[in-house]
Amino acid sequence: MRFFSDNAAACHPAVLEALAEANAMDTAYDGDTWSARLDGVFSELFETKVRALWVTTGTAANCLALAALCPPYGAILCHRDAHIEVDEAGAPGFFTHGAKLMLLDGAGAKVTPAAVEAACDRIRADVHQVQPHALSITNASEYGQVYRAAEVGALGEVAKRRGLGFHMDGARFANAIAFTGERPAEVTWRAGVDALSFGFVKNGGMSAEALIFFKPELAEETLVRRKRAGHLLSKGRFLAAQLLALIDQDRWLVNGRTANAAARVLAEAAGARLALPVETNELFVQMTADEAARLRAAGYDFYDWAPGEVRLVTSWDQDMGAVGKLAEAIAAL
Amino acid sequence: MRFFSDNAAACHPAVLEALAEANAMDTAYDGDTWSARLDGVFSELFETKVRALWVTTGTAANCLALAALCPPYGAILCHRDAHIEVDEAGAPGFFTHGAKLMLLDGAGAKVTPAAVEAACDRIRADVHQVQPHALSITNASEYGQVYRAAEVGALGEVAKRRGLGFHMDGARFANAIAFTGERPAEVTWRAGVDALSFGFVKNGGMSAEALIFFKPELAEETLVRRKRAGHLLSKGRFLAAQLLALIDQDRWLVNGRTANAAARVLAEAAGARLALPVETNELFVQMTADEAARLRAAGYDFYDWAPGEVRLVTSWDQDMGAVGKLAEAIAAL
Amino acid sequence: MRFFSDNAAACHPAVLEALAEANAMDTAYDGDTWSARLDGVFSELFETKVRALWVTTGTAANCLALAALCPPYGAILCHRDAHIEVDEAGAPGFFTHGAKLMLLDGAGAKVTPAAVEAACDRIRADVHQVQPHALSITNASEYGQVYRAAEVGALGEVAKRRGLGFHMDGARFANAIAFTGERPAEVTWRAGVDALSFGFVKNGGMSAEALIFFKPELAEETLVRRKRAGHLLSKGRFLAAQLLALIDQDRWLVNGRTANAAARVLAEAAGARLALPVETNELFVQMTADEAARLRAAGYDFYDWAPGEVRLVTSWDQDMGAVGKLAEAIAAL
Amino acid sequence: MRFFSDNAAACHPAVLEALAEANAMDTAYDGDTWSARLDGVFSELFETKVRALWVTTGTAANCLALAALCPPYGAILCHRDAHIEVDEAGAPGFFTHGAKLMLLDGAGAKVTPAAVEAACDRIRADVHQVQPHALSITNASEYGQVYRAAEVGALGEVAKRRGLGFHMDGARFANAIAFTGERPAEVTWRAGVDALSFGFVKNGGMSAEALIFFKPELAEETLVRRKRAGHLLSKGRFLAAQLLALIDQDRWLVNGRTANAAARVLAEAAGARLALPVETNELFVQMTADEAARLRAAGYDFYDWAPGEVRLVTSWDQDMGAVGKLAEAIAAL
Repeated sequence: MRFFSDNAAACHPAVLEALAEANAMDTAYDGDTWSARLDGVFSELFETKVRALWVTTGTAANCLALAALCPPYGAILCHRDAHIEVDEAGAPGFFTHGAKLMLLDGAGAKVTPAAVEAACDRIRADVHQVQPHALSITNASEYGQVYRAAEVGALGEVAKRRGLGFHMDGARFANAIAFTGERPAEVTWRAGVDALSFGFVKNGGMSAEALIFFKPELAEETLVRRKRAGHLLSKGRFLAAQLLALIDQDRWLVNGRTANAAARVLAEAAGARLALPVETNELFVQMTADEAARLRAAGYDFYDWAPGEVRLVTSWDQDMGAVGKLAEAIAAL
Repeated sequence: MRFFSDNAAACHPAVLEALAEANAMDTAYDGDTWSARLDGVFSELFETKVRALWVTTGTAANCLALAALCPPYGAILCHRDAHIEVDEAGAPGFFTHGAKLMLLDGAGAKVTPAAVEAACDRIRADVHQVQPHALSITNASEYGQVYRAAEVGALGEVAKRRGLGFHMDGARFANAIAFTGERPAEVTWRAGVDALSFGFVKNGGMSAEALIFFKPELAEETLVRRKRAGHLLSKGRFLAAQLLALIDQDRWLVNGRTANAAARVLAEAAGARLALPVETNELFVQMTADEAARLRAAGYDFYDWAPGEVRLVTSWDQDMGAVGKLAEAIAAL
Repeated sequence: MRFFSDNAAACHPAVLEALAEANAMDTAYDGDTWSARLDGVFSELFETKVRALWVTTGTAANCLALAALCPPYGAILCHRDAHIEVDEAGAPGFFTHGAKLMLLDGAGAKVTPAAVEAACDRIRADVHQVQPHALSITNASEYGQVYRAAEVGALGEVAKRRGLGFHMDGARFANAIAFTGERPAEVTWRAGVDALSFGFVKNGGMSAEALIFFKPELAEETLVRRKRAGHLLSKGRFLAAQLLALIDQDRWLVNGRTANAAARVLAEAAGARLALPVETNELFVQMTADEAARLRAAGYDFYDWAPGEVRLVTSWDQDMGAVGKLAEAIAAL
Repeated sequence: MRFFSDNAAACHPAVLEALAEANAMDTAYDGDTWSARLDGVFSELFETKVRALWVTTGTAANCLALAALCPPYGAILCHRDAHIEVDEAGAPGFFTHGAKLMLLDGAGAKVTPAAVEAACDRIRADVHQVQPHALSITNASEYGQVYRAAEVGALGEVAKRRGLGFHMDGARFANAIAFTGERPAEVTWRAGVDALSFGFVKNGGMSAEALIFFKPELAEETLVRRKRAGHLLSKGRFLAAQLLALIDQDRWLVNGRTANAAARVLAEAAGARLALPVETNELFVQMTADEAARLRAAGYDFYDWAPGEVRLVTSWDQDMGAVGKLAEAIAAL
């Protein structure tokens, strides 16, 4: 029973069905009828006119967005634990042609307006120091913490005042929305976000993520950059079909809720062992190496996060019976 | 009835079945059991130890290979009509950090040893001129022409003597092998090729291409570059499964033969109208705009290649009845 | 007696005097009083408000200009024999982050409006092909040929219509102006040029070139790029002082005239041997290897340009006695 | 009286004399007789065979060295206050094509072996995290602190064990050597340093720095990169001549000693106000804004470093009378 990563989960059956349906000859690249529906479907979801591009990875979505928001000689403000800093092999430097990540501290891997202001204040406005051009936050954060719309809005206000583009890495956007119940529009463009990496792979998809531009003009250049980065698949309809299947019937949100619910079951069992409140589908649980070994011996797979702390991640397709048993096992430690 | 591009074809049913089979939780990225089989399966096919990496596009395969073979300050020799020069949005410049494509002429979009030698001879060996570091050829070429093993070997000999890495863009490698009947080993590593972009998407795949390194040491750095370019999918097993399905029962080769056979039917009908001999699945047929319009009015879709010339491409899933009718229509022009 | 390259010439005495005068403590980088005068001095020379930045090489001037005019995913149109293509070690690819040079043909290494139009017409306006974003010409050209203001204007008109930035490599701008007698304004901004690499090193300078922006807004970003490329010298006043010394009393133009005059003396002697009319300070003279050997044996140093053709370059500091003797020697061949 | 920066100092008279001597026609670029002497002269100074390349800025020297030591997808460990991180406008990202600076803490802007080890230990050895490939230290540090040979050696040992290239930014190498009296060889290659940016501009030069490779094979590629970055000046002899003039009669070291001596005079006056021990030519002096204002009113120019702290920098050409008066003024505060 795996609680290792939502990256490893299965695809939703509707995704496989959509792939089968899309398996007829159509125009190549993104000229097909499936891809043509994306702008409309996402515009409806976000209650404003957006441009929606498929890509195959969150890293590609994040870094194409950053390249649109930051010149090669600029800097992007992000949390020290941000995925773009820690887990993308320097992809931001590759896609932006050398822009710099300027690292911020903050509890729960969340960025605060004060941290952004302080970082900007530290930079002299001259040609010797790299100037910040963009802000990137992760929602839910790398620690499963969720920004409320008001928090995003406060950051958006700083970003605007400081002249920073504003990107949201939403690899677990579904889990975040499932937690707060806020509308997607409220936590994104209404709060000042310019571009969103909207994650679907962790949430029932197979190989498709959506890159959403709330400033449609940013999309034009990105279409070129996507091709130039080898990310324009020739049978793009199979990516578009995945996204459409998960948007249909709000499957993305249902899946997010399911994963969160599984995490809550475990969270109640973990109680005081929790290093952080559980808001989405990630749990950081304090336990000794011996306790961890006992759980593993009982067949549970998870990640050693830090000495005396493990990370458990629940997925949309988690078997709730197994979750219940793990909860009992944790409670019994 | 579409004769526009093999990019637009369907996926082979075995590919969809493989995706369904792979749809169980497994280790993320390329740590899964499907990806683990690739090196072995391709080593068997090529009769030598190779490293095989999945990627989602031919552009990514080509440019990751070029980045492994050419430093940022070097040049890559290729044909003036090569896909990397004409149709990849400058991706070679992106992946290599600015290396230059040095363009060669040659009939049928094929490169000759003499052209390579002449290009190298034109360059002064000093720091003012960009020095060639790699050679890239496309097999089958952008005009559907096939390099025989001896031709590749002659280029490989020049490449070795001139200190050039040697890459083959095999977007239509299956069609090339189907035409000559030569062994994959003969036209690649035995002929001096260091890296092969082995195309599957045009040939029954959905979204997986194979990047084959015959010098396994080149693969190590490329694993990092693949991640850095956003090309390490988190559910990589779905790419590996596609490749395995198409290698199984030689489906890739069967598909290549089928597409070629369809092209031959059309070629016989086209006769003296052919601008080039038809060796694979691409036909360049001379016809007036009026003739082309009549074919289109009859429901055939294809590409205007040049004034007085159209391109027809057949696919592995082409309906042979439709092919026969198109042949008749061409003959009747 | 060297007729090898104007790169190898001495500095004008006024340049050395200016260096000595500048040798007092002043503000670092470009905050000094000498640098502060550049915008004004060049604005006067060009009869419009310009921004003038010092750099140490023509390659830096050219490539900073190109980076300001072309995005990483774009193309720059230039002549096949342009210095940026042939002799800058791929620097345009480095400074622009991978933009492509799209090569044009044209007599005397000059670009024609028709060649620009044809090149643009060849490109499909889609994301698969690299789109032209800039045009770069060299005046005087690599073959010493000069664009008249009307010729530049015709190119400027095409550039504007096609949405191309327009750069002039003026490594030998002084020689060009000396030849036509046209005003600097006429052959640059009034003809549509956006940025000029104004060469001083070949023309009496030691280590300073001027990068002139006729659209001042382009300079802002370039100030950052100059620093980022390691081209912001800490004692910048010594570069500014060189430029000021050569602008003073029109020394740049006097030097250009002197070099041209020396070339004309040789040109008259060479007569029918000339492969091209001599407009500035470069001569391409047809002679046999034996004849070239005889001149070398007599103490003259020059470049073998092609089989049966040598290149002679005269400099601002050429000894006119030696020039006269070489003319006699050529005439006597 | 300026105590603002050694960047603003004058050139040594011997440098101007050398420029005048070099002002005869010679071979262009680095093919001249002056440049040809550099390898020999620096090999003698460092008591081993080195390659010595002139460049015009410390930023160019640093970043060319880093590009030789770190691939585009790697990381360079350096102090959080390192010049390459704080004051080079992101040039390391430009020259390395996107490599990352991984920041270390340490008193006096000095790096410790423990900090290097800890940083390396934090990185998982997988393709998701950027792997360290090089270490860069500044000697004397940005706070004027000097590494003793044994300290460098301890870092060199860690670098070797961890597989890191080792670069020293010696913008104030002269001041460092002047302080310890250790041999240049001891604090560089014998301690494991692969490449040294040997600063001359702050130390009596006009526009020439030396990039020294102790592994000569690293220089070959760097010659190409130097040209590609626009840093190969066509009249390179004027840079070589500066370096030769300052190496001659140990002027570089004499100048370093003079600047250090001036700083010591001020340090004694500052006494308990010093935030750090004064080892070279930089002083960090605690004083109130009011005190600073009084000194400025008396004609002294310096840098506000932090609230309650100013930075004074002495130069090789500092007037010792003025230094004495400033010392009195500080003592009298």
